[in-house]
Amino acid sequence: MNKSEALQNILQSKYPIIQAGMVWCSGWRLAAASCNAGAFGVIGAGSMYPEILDEHLSKMRLNTNKRFAVNLPLMYPSIEEHIELIITHKVPVVITSAGSPSKYTGLLKEAGIKVMHLVSSVAHAIKAEQAGVDAVIAEGFEAGGHNGRDETTTFVLCPSVAEAVSIPLVAAGGIRDGRGIAAAFALGANGVQIGSRFVLSEESSAHQAFKNLLRETDEGGTSLTLKELAPVRLIKNKFFEDIMDAYKQGADQSELRALLGRGRAKKGMFEGDLDDGELEIGQVAGYISEILPAAEIVNSLVSEFNETLDKLGKTATW
Amino acid sequence: MNKSEALQNILQSKYPIIQAGMVWCSGWRLAAASCNAGAFGVIGAGSMYPEILDEHLSKMRLNTNKRFAVNLPLMYPSIEEHIELIITHKVPVVITSAGSPSKYTGLLKEAGIKVMHLVSSVAHAIKAEQAGVDAVIAEGFEAGGHNGRDETTTFVLCPSVAEAVSIPLVAAGGIRDGRGIAAAFALGANGVQIGSRFVLSEESSAHQAFKNLLRETDEGGTSLTLKELAPVRLIKNKFFEDIMDAYKQGADQSELRALLGRGRAKKGMFEGDLDDGELEIGQVAGYISEILPAAEIVNSLVSEFNETLDKLGKTATW
Repeated sequence: MNKSEALQNILQSKYPIIQAGMVWCSGWRLAAASCNAGAFGVIGAGSMYPEILDEHLSKMRLNTNKRFAVNLPLMYPSIEEHIELIITHKVPVVITSAGSPSKYTGLLKEAGIKVMHLVSSVAHAIKAEQAGVDAVIAEGFEAGGHNGRDETTTFVLCPSVAEAVSIPLVAAGGIRDGRGIAAAFALGANGVQIGSRFVLSEESSAHQAFKNLLRETDEGGTSLTLKELAPVRLIKNKFFEDIMDAYKQGADQSELRALLGRGRAKKGMFEGDLDDGELEIGQVAGYISEILPAAEIVNSLVSEFNETLDKLGKTATW
Repeated sequence: MNKSEALQNILQSKYPIIQAGMVWCSGWRLAAASCNAGAFGVIGAGSMYPEILDEHLSKMRLNTNKRFAVNLPLMYPSIEEHIELIITHKVPVVITSAGSPSKYTGLLKEAGIKVMHLVSSVAHAIKAEQAGVDAVIAEGFEAGGHNGRDETTTFVLCPSVAEAVSIPLVAAGGIRDGRGIAAAFALGANGVQIGSRFVLSEESSAHQAFKNLLRETDEGGTSLTLKELAPVRLIKNKFFEDIMDAYKQGADQSELRALLGRGRAKKGMFEGDLDDGELEIGQVAGYISEILPAAEIVNSLVSEFNETLDKLGKTATW
């Protein structure tokens, strides 16, 4: 079984396109729509209390008969309850992130669950393989949400991870269309994970005001910051400027933590407070201007991918 | 004439692979070797006094009969003398960077010279096209040397520049092998510019100690810094740590400029002072471990590119 087949064995979706699990944006509605369109849907559990995750898992089953995953940040305080729910609901795949894969991978796999782990460096990819995960998702600097301190980009990261591990590689960060999927494949990926593009779907649970802001975000409209806490890519809104001011005044880690406070991501992405909210998104937000149904997004990804391969096929080799 | 043909018309090289013009690393020796191997060689004039550039141009003509370019940073103090030399020596192509393309493009084109301009954003690509340049080179965040304040990566930048301008696009930043060339093509590029990989060539004029350090540089070994002056990607050596300390102490622009001082790039890259020198290099330095003749580098780029296209051609479309 080659790596592409191994990934297909995990996802069992029509296309090796994973709709990223994202806090406040990807509940059952988006995940089910992605699944039903032939992609692989993911519920982002990082912004859900256990009872909310429970509800989303029940609704997911009612709205699709396809396989899907839950994205599980390993730092999440109620993680044990989340894992219990995941096992009870027989979730077929878990994507772990933001923590060491060695702690829960064994437990999940014993329950028959496939595990993919999010990494931002070759070193972490190797550790994840050693911890027994079934695939790695390598996320570049351009990705939204939390990513690596090394700032390694998708273009640089993918080929090296592909060489370093023998498990399948999913590329993430900067992929917004079918050209990007073809490029990721050229760089050695077996599949892709796409986030920001799906935040701008009709089914994403991002607040409409956040979606509208994203449509109008220009190039250079995001920045990776808060490296002293956990690096995160944010829209440059008023809250971002507050962070910049804090840096200018020499804020230390605890002052930054106090400034961030609690609940800012919810306030921004879910409740639509565009000034004081924490608005996590990828660099590609500067280049997407449409809000579409998830199925249309998937269809256009696939047709652009086919066109790109077709065009490359006509490129004279040297 | 499509964009690929238009680029071929500018370069007239066997392969649309540009060996980047880099301060202290790419004199006539590297540029001639790249040209003679079928790539497109570039002399980096940014680190040359006019009399040195004159000498390199003469030696270039003695060592290759192929077309080549001079990379010309537009902020360079003796730029008028450089341009005079370029015209006298009938240099066929000039790559301008670090400044507005509107000032000299007309003059160069009147002299029959093709002009390519280095950009790091869609907005600058559009301005360059309006200024009349023949092609743009879009350089991502992962590139070595000086690049954009927006931190847009190659993966994100390329498709948008390809859409925004009707002149050819050369992708730069993060490309170290034939997989990267194929990926750049998928993202809409018509050619590629490769820098760091050629710093690690036998013919590059980088100091041997710098080359040896690069061979051992690990992932995460570079960082983009000095955004208050002109953003530059550096090896994290002692000088880099000095910059970090200065930031911690709240250094302003003039203090950073004083810390940088004069001649640090020469000291590091050309004279081999690995502690106090300014060591400019791309993120890919963390993943290259061989010093090869430029011709071998070109040959392996080409064979990997062909293999990658072949593999992609066998990828089932969906």
